[in-house]
Amino acid sequence: MKSKGSDTLMQQVVERFSDTPDPRLREIMGSLVRHLHGFIRETGLTEQEWMQGIEFLTAVGQKCDARRQEFILLSDVLGASMQVVSVQSERAPGCTESTVFGPFHVEGAPQVANGGDVANGAQGARCVVHGTVRDDAGRAVADATIDVWQSDDEGLYDVQRPGLQGAQGRGVLKSQADGSFWFRSVLPVPYPIPTDGPVGALLRASRRPCWRPAHLHFRIQAAGCETLITHVFRSGDPHIDADPVFGVRPSLIADWPASADGGHELRFDFALQRTNAAV
Amino acid sequence: MKSKGSDTLMQQVVERFSDTPDPRLREIMGSLVRHLHGFIRETGLTEQEWMQGIEFLTAVGQKCDARRQEFILLSDVLGASMQVVSVQSERAPGCTESTVFGPFHVEGAPQVANGGDVANGAQGARCVVHGTVRDDAGRAVADATIDVWQSDDEGLYDVQRPGLQGAQGRGVLKSQADGSFWFRSVLPVPYPIPTDGPVGALLRASRRPCWRPAHLHFRIQAAGCETLITHVFRSGDPHIDADPVFGVRPSLIADWPASADGGHELRFDFALQRTNAAV
Repeated sequence: MKSKGSDTLMQQVVERFSDTPDPRLREIMGSLVRHLHGFIRETGLTEQEWMQGIEFLTAVGQKCDARRQEFILLSDVLGASMQVVSVQSERAPGCTESTVFGPFHVEGAPQVANGGDVANGAQGARCVVHGTVRDDAGRAVADATIDVWQSDDEGLYDVQRPGLQGAQGRGVLKSQADGSFWFRSVLPVPYPIPTDGPVGALLRASRRPCWRPAHLHFRIQAAGCETLITHVFRSGDPHIDADPVFGVRPSLIADWPASADGGHELRFDFALQRTNAAV
Repeated sequence: MKSKGSDTLMQQVVERFSDTPDPRLREIMGSLVRHLHGFIRETGLTEQEWMQGIEFLTAVGQKCDARRQEFILLSDVLGASMQVVSVQSERAPGCTESTVFGPFHVEGAPQVANGGDVANGAQGARCVVHGTVRDDAGRAVADATIDVWQSDDEGLYDVQRPGLQGAQGRGVLKSQADGSFWFRSVLPVPYPIPTDGPVGALLRASRRPCWRPAHLHFRIQAAGCETLITHVFRSGDPHIDADPVFGVRPSLIADWPASADGGHELRFDFALQRTNAAV
């Protein structure tokens, strides 16, 4: 039996994963163990602090349900979600930049025809969005599947309204032959991330701002292209430099000028990376 | 707005915690963020892998209830619990070594008089335990509070038997004037850690053994002394070199010889560190 010094212990744990058949799982667990033990050794974590951590993580898990994903929120406020995006998108220069997925996407949102209304009852200032989907060579991408989702004028997504049945502020469009798509909706506004759970308690204890700058979520999928998950933000937003989930990239900030009818209009063009297999 | 390179992002997140009033929380969050981002960057974690991690952690939280603490179990199998113990006990040389607390302790177990029966209906071979509590100068510690807890001959703790009301295999004793204590119970046997949850799935995917060597848990609290949390293991146990929670230390392995009545007997002396305040 080996001595149980801190370093020896860490190596022992890494070695215990050496029979893992999946080499990627083995690599991930080895790195995780080294960083987890490094954190404990660097901070000299006490048993009381460890127990507070256990209780915090348990509370995060127990806050999750079909409409609430507190672990994604935790990952978001720790910048981990954006770090995953950054690590990946370093491999995809020249295309529209990605940002965090966030906890509010719902699969199976209603199909919306071009020109249709995504708000579907969500309240807010009128807004029209025109976009195009192209590939990394500038060619139009037809028949792309475009998920959009957004908050209403109170900064709430439909899933945050307990009594609400059916989708509001979310829909799935298809790009046309020239790559274009368009829809009507309401203007997104800044909103605080949910602070009634353990992640909110962490932000309060850290005196961290919790307001996200206004944004519209997109997920764009097309045959032969890498899926793009991103937001479009509004220029001049007062929270643009303090996004609690670190999702803002300069290339994703756009003007949403006032339109003749008193609403707003956004025009944004997306460039998808071709997958290697399809090129 | 700063560029969003991986390193810049990590620094941004650390800086976002700079207004945290509690300096220890600020230190812990800074270290946590650096190691979490280091893990993501080192592995080049993909969004799909990240989502699998989110789902795993959510399942761990949702497996927890009043009788089951899956996050402690996860910490245990990653060696994190033992690393916390190791980091702390490097400060306490010369006394009985600590080991992991484990997920099966219950506060408020029954008081048991010296010579009393801790098993209280738990099945197993008869076993008598004699111990003494001393301080780091070898002086007897009277009136120490000694929590003991253990599994039965099927390797189960009382809290793992859904229908069972009341405590079995656990109790709280007091040391006598000469520091001694003794009780009757049943012989602990090796047992697999609970594998019906997400931690079990991780162990299976890693081909890791799940059997803990037989042990008896102790928590010893006394005025003027640091609380000691430890186990006593049985020499010759087939699982002694492969404890899934990394809790074995050579100094905690003892002989449990057969006694004249066909049962077993353990004698073990504990040495507590005096707290600085009381010396």
